[in-house]
Amino acid sequence: MRIVNPYVSVDCVLLGFDGERLNVLVVRQTNREGNVDTGCYKLPGSLIYMDEGLDEAAQRVLKQLTGLVQVKMFQFKAFGGVDRLADSKDSVWLERFHNLDHHLERIVTIAYLSLLRIDRKMTLDDGFEAHWIPVNDIPRLAFDHNDIVSEAVTSVRRMTTLDPTMLFGLLPRKFTAAQLRVVMENVAGISIDIKNFHKKLATMPYVVPLDEKEEGVKHRAARYFKFKSVNRR
Amino acid sequence: MRIVNPYVSVDCVLLGFDGERLNVLVVRQTNREGNVDTGCYKLPGSLIYMDEGLDEAAQRVLKQLTGLVQVKMFQFKAFGGVDRLADSKDSVWLERFHNLDHHLERIVTIAYLSLLRIDRKMTLDDGFEAHWIPVNDIPRLAFDHNDIVSEAVTSVRRMTTLDPTMLFGLLPRKFTAAQLRVVMENVAGISIDIKNFHKKLATMPYVVPLDEKEEGVKHRAARYFKFKSVNRR
Repeated sequence: MRIVNPYVSVDCVLLGFDGERLNVLVVRQTNREGNVDTGCYKLPGSLIYMDEGLDEAAQRVLKQLTGLVQVKMFQFKAFGGVDRLADSKDSVWLERFHNLDHHLERIVTIAYLSLLRIDRKMTLDDGFEAHWIPVNDIPRLAFDHNDIVSEAVTSVRRMTTLDPTMLFGLLPRKFTAAQLRVVMENVAGISIDIKNFHKKLATMPYVVPLDEKEEGVKHRAARYFKFKSVNRR
Repeated sequence: MRIVNPYVSVDCVLLGFDGERLNVLVVRQTNREGNVDTGCYKLPGSLIYMDEGLDEAAQRVLKQLTGLVQVKMFQFKAFGGVDRLADSKDSVWLERFHNLDHHLERIVTIAYLSLLRIDRKMTLDDGFEAHWIPVNDIPRLAFDHNDIVSEAVTSVRRMTTLDPTMLFGLLPRKFTAAQLRVVMENVAGISIDIKNFHKKLATMPYVVPLDEKEEGVKHRAARYFKFKSVNRR
């Protein structure tokens, strides 16, 4: 049996909520100078460097490709299937991008995950054409990145069933019941009955009503809620 | 910045409960023929081969080094710090074991985790000297394997707080309240009040009393319980 000497990369699945839909952040498969190469979209990622650990690589990538800093990400899964380079355009692109002098036989990638709200103040780097794309409307991505996004969403679904407080990263600090309901619908991929949602809200120990309401809205101003961490023991 | 071309391994953290304590499965750092090499213990693990994915590598390792088959394991974390080969005896051992013709600069390992009960029928492979060692009594292991075990235990602690049904892998199909309490104490690293435990048990929707009691015991026969999966939505 031959030992394989693969390259190792990190890839970042950033899931963002824009108030209506769950989105994922993608960048173009550009060349080193930031010009379009294959034209394909991919997750923000990179091979790891000599002097960095996995977490540092993930933070470097995010900063370099999207301009985002201090985004709390956590490892979600390693992908190392034998057919990750099935589409030769991806290995050719990577060899060219990194000036590698030998053929890539395998890449194992460590995927990171983050849930955040899409803030209008967020400025995405033009060079790599970072874009938010609705999760339900993703084109064919490079490598196995469609599978990675899909496993990330499944994983978030499972994790938030056990720990719904994870969802609060997707929302602003103060949020309305409607905003929380739409986030839950988007993540769970189901629709939630509007009428019963206020009752359901009352059973969530981690959601606390505030003495504040929306201002300057045309419809009836909705009450704001905030998230409270709950000790489970 | 230089791209690193590391080797990739899998390591298996098998946590087993013997009725009294939480144990972890370790093997000797032997040579290829199964003879003692460095004398150190390590987690069951291996570099990955050309034609196998990560999950298959983990299953191969476990079978080869411990004789265990069909153990349900899941990925728990990738470890890829720059100082994983800080102790040169580990890289020398690995180069020798695999007849590598160049120096190892880096290994990224994908750690797998499993919770199981230690069954008397389990026969461990003699060649690699597989042993169960109490988690609270682990010697200095090779590589960063002490850190990996310690993060695995922390991770199980966090996961079982959210989803206590994970604990049932550690118990026989029918178990007594005392057995469940001892498992919980071991995993949480705290002691649980015996008197209130029966009350606490009644609040666990995933634990169901059976119409069966222990037989042939000297003390008062305890009732058996079984685990029931609960729909959380």
